[in-house]
Amino acid sequence: MIPLGIPDEEFIRGKVPMTKQEIRVLTVAKAGIKPDSVICDVGAGTGSISIEAAIQAKDGMVYAIERNPEGIELIKKNAEKFGVYNLKVIEAYAPEGMDELPQLDAAIIGGSGKNLPIILDEIDKKLVNGGRIVINCITIQTIAKCLEYMRKREDYSYEAIQVQVNLLEQVGPYDMAKANNPIYIVTCVKQGGK
Amino acid sequence: MIPLGIPDEEFIRGKVPMTKQEIRVLTVAKAGIKPDSVICDVGAGTGSISIEAAIQAKDGMVYAIERNPEGIELIKKNAEKFGVYNLKVIEAYAPEGMDELPQLDAAIIGGSGKNLPIILDEIDKKLVNGGRIVINCITIQTIAKCLEYMRKREDYSYEAIQVQVNLLEQVGPYDMAKANNPIYIVTCVKQGGK
Amino acid sequence: MIPLGIPDEEFIRGKVPMTKQEIRVLTVAKAGIKPDSVICDVGAGTGSISIEAAIQAKDGMVYAIERNPEGIELIKKNAEKFGVYNLKVIEAYAPEGMDELPQLDAAIIGGSGKNLPIILDEIDKKLVNGGRIVINCITIQTIAKCLEYMRKREDYSYEAIQVQVNLLEQVGPYDMAKANNPIYIVTCVKQGGK
Amino acid sequence: MIPLGIPDEEFIRGKVPMTKQEIRVLTVAKAGIKPDSVICDVGAGTGSISIEAAIQAKDGMVYAIERNPEGIELIKKNAEKFGVYNLKVIEAYAPEGMDELPQLDAAIIGGSGKNLPIILDEIDKKLVNGGRIVINCITIQTIAKCLEYMRKREDYSYEAIQVQVNLLEQVGPYDMAKANNPIYIVTCVKQGGK
Repeated sequence: MIPLGIPDEEFIRGKVPMTKQEIRVLTVAKAGIKPDSVICDVGAGTGSISIEAAIQAKDGMVYAIERNPEGIELIKKNAEKFGVYNLKVIEAYAPEGMDELPQLDAAIIGGSGKNLPIILDEIDKKLVNGGRIVINCITIQTIAKCLEYMRKREDYSYEAIQVQVNLLEQVGPYDMAKANNPIYIVTCVKQGGK
Repeated sequence: MIPLGIPDEEFIRGKVPMTKQEIRVLTVAKAGIKPDSVICDVGAGTGSISIEAAIQAKDGMVYAIERNPEGIELIKKNAEKFGVYNLKVIEAYAPEGMDELPQLDAAIIGGSGKNLPIILDEIDKKLVNGGRIVINCITIQTIAKCLEYMRKREDYSYEAIQVQVNLLEQVGPYDMAKANNPIYIVTCVKQGGK
Repeated sequence: MIPLGIPDEEFIRGKVPMTKQEIRVLTVAKAGIKPDSVICDVGAGTGSISIEAAIQAKDGMVYAIERNPEGIELIKKNAEKFGVYNLKVIEAYAPEGMDELPQLDAAIIGGSGKNLPIILDEIDKKLVNGGRIVINCITIQTIAKCLEYMRKREDYSYEAIQVQVNLLEQVGPYDMAKANNPIYIVTCVKQGGK
Repeated sequence: MIPLGIPDEEFIRGKVPMTKQEIRVLTVAKAGIKPDSVICDVGAGTGSISIEAAIQAKDGMVYAIERNPEGIELIKKNAEKFGVYNLKVIEAYAPEGMDELPQLDAAIIGGSGKNLPIILDEIDKKLVNGGRIVINCITIQTIAKCLEYMRKREDYSYEAIQVQVNLLEQVGPYDMAKANNPIYIVTCVKQGGK
């Protein structure tokens, strides 16, 4: 089994932006994936999160929703490269394509555009009690909208963090800080009841 | 199997400072632990990293080196709580106690005091080719010493990052950023050869 | 003349939270204060920003709006301590008290509660073309509301930054990173025209 | 008088890297410059810090030490652009050229290469009691060396901070965090006595 935390350079990448290793690891960890978990990854991009999730959910299933043809191609190539077979690509622009999802143990949202509330509504329909939604937000508008949504949902609790990673680049005899863009990670737990 | 990323509040804690979940997850992920890995955790503190490492290395073994009696007690209690049996506590002030370690696939250094170079020498004696050392540094002196050591070792490559996590605290209708202290994480890979 | 950047410990402080030196310096610098500037400081707290602004605007005037009696007392004591006489305290809960303001060259908003849009409207009535508004935001809701407001105002341009300062605490032989909470600083420039 | 915090885009720039506005403002503020201060700026680059310092020290003098011919040219052009006449360029690779410096109230070190301890020794010879040295460090090696030096000097106290600024870039309807590299700023005060 491949441990969580595949190095970025091992993924096949095109021009599609890819979540960096540290953020990918934290996102997958926050999703609390078990060996038999069923997960959907909305806005899967290159599929790097989908693949790490699928490795953790080795007896479960990952549904990667992505509309960009280049992204879809990359997800499939990466799945093949890492020997991941419990990963199905849904070629759609979420929330389209989400009605065919089965019951979910976890959902990861990497890219949502303006549709975040509708996507969250759709996920909620499928999510088991105790299930989790992990949302990566790189804009103020997205984190604000995400918090606004969750604050209205009394059946969810959430934890939101901002993570910033600086790489120490090795330049001659020096290690020089080089910043990555910060990201907000919101982890929502469906409380059940009500 | 418990997924990587046990929430902080699930660990039994005393007054011993504990690595926060996000840093623990990244540290364990950087160590590249496989199901049969043999790992040592130097300066194990409450054992939170040792336990997450032991869960990942379910057919392997974790050696937790800690000198503080309160820490040792906590490691044992936490191991019991999480049903972790492949974890042995070595009650010593590293590098003491390290000669009894077997061959290692990975080593994690959470606390090293002034002995970092000697501890790294000891780990190197046991570490397999391709093995990893992950070092958490919260002071400039430790990260500087760590980089100085690794720059002299041509048989190692390293990656160093600084990670900062801000929690959004829920205060009435607001989500207010509350900072955690940043930390450097250095991941060293033994290249073999020579 | 006292240079911009009075150390925190030189201010008389009660239990009222005070903007830290680095954020105070950046906030005052972003306001582009000239010797004859007329400025208002909304939610002035201990008055630390008002006082630094008043020192820069030595031939101008600063209006500090604050409702908390303890804060008002501190502003007056600090003004006296630093020999600042071009500072007038308006005892009110903004936007109350703002109609008595004269024409403004700059406005600083340290605390706004839920009234941010109304406060911005009031400031706009007084602000000269080319004048600036600098807003400190410590919650997602405030920065989101602030950006939403400014995006609707075609007669303003804005720059928004997030600043995080870590102090290296001197602990025995070590310098250990200790984080301060991050803050957003939004600088808005009234373009005039129309 | 031009207020502290000239926007980056107002400086004439070549390919020489320039300290960003926020770091420039904090660096100059930490130096505690008074109207009659005499300052040296070691490794002046484009001169952006020298020029802001010279504006603050309007009756004093700034000595900008820079070896790069392109930098020297830019410093002179920028001085002319901002009407700064109390700025003298010393074309040298510090510590060369430092023996011609007069008594100093403050020194700023933006670039020091491997010569930091010798440069600090040279500055110390000229620095008045109560004078300040502000050092910008972008590598672990420089901050470590700087702290090591200051810890040995019982006649200096120091404060060290790390500052990270993220810009919110305006992309369509979104404000997207874009990181700048973090920097350490060390402020040293000569205690006098002994």
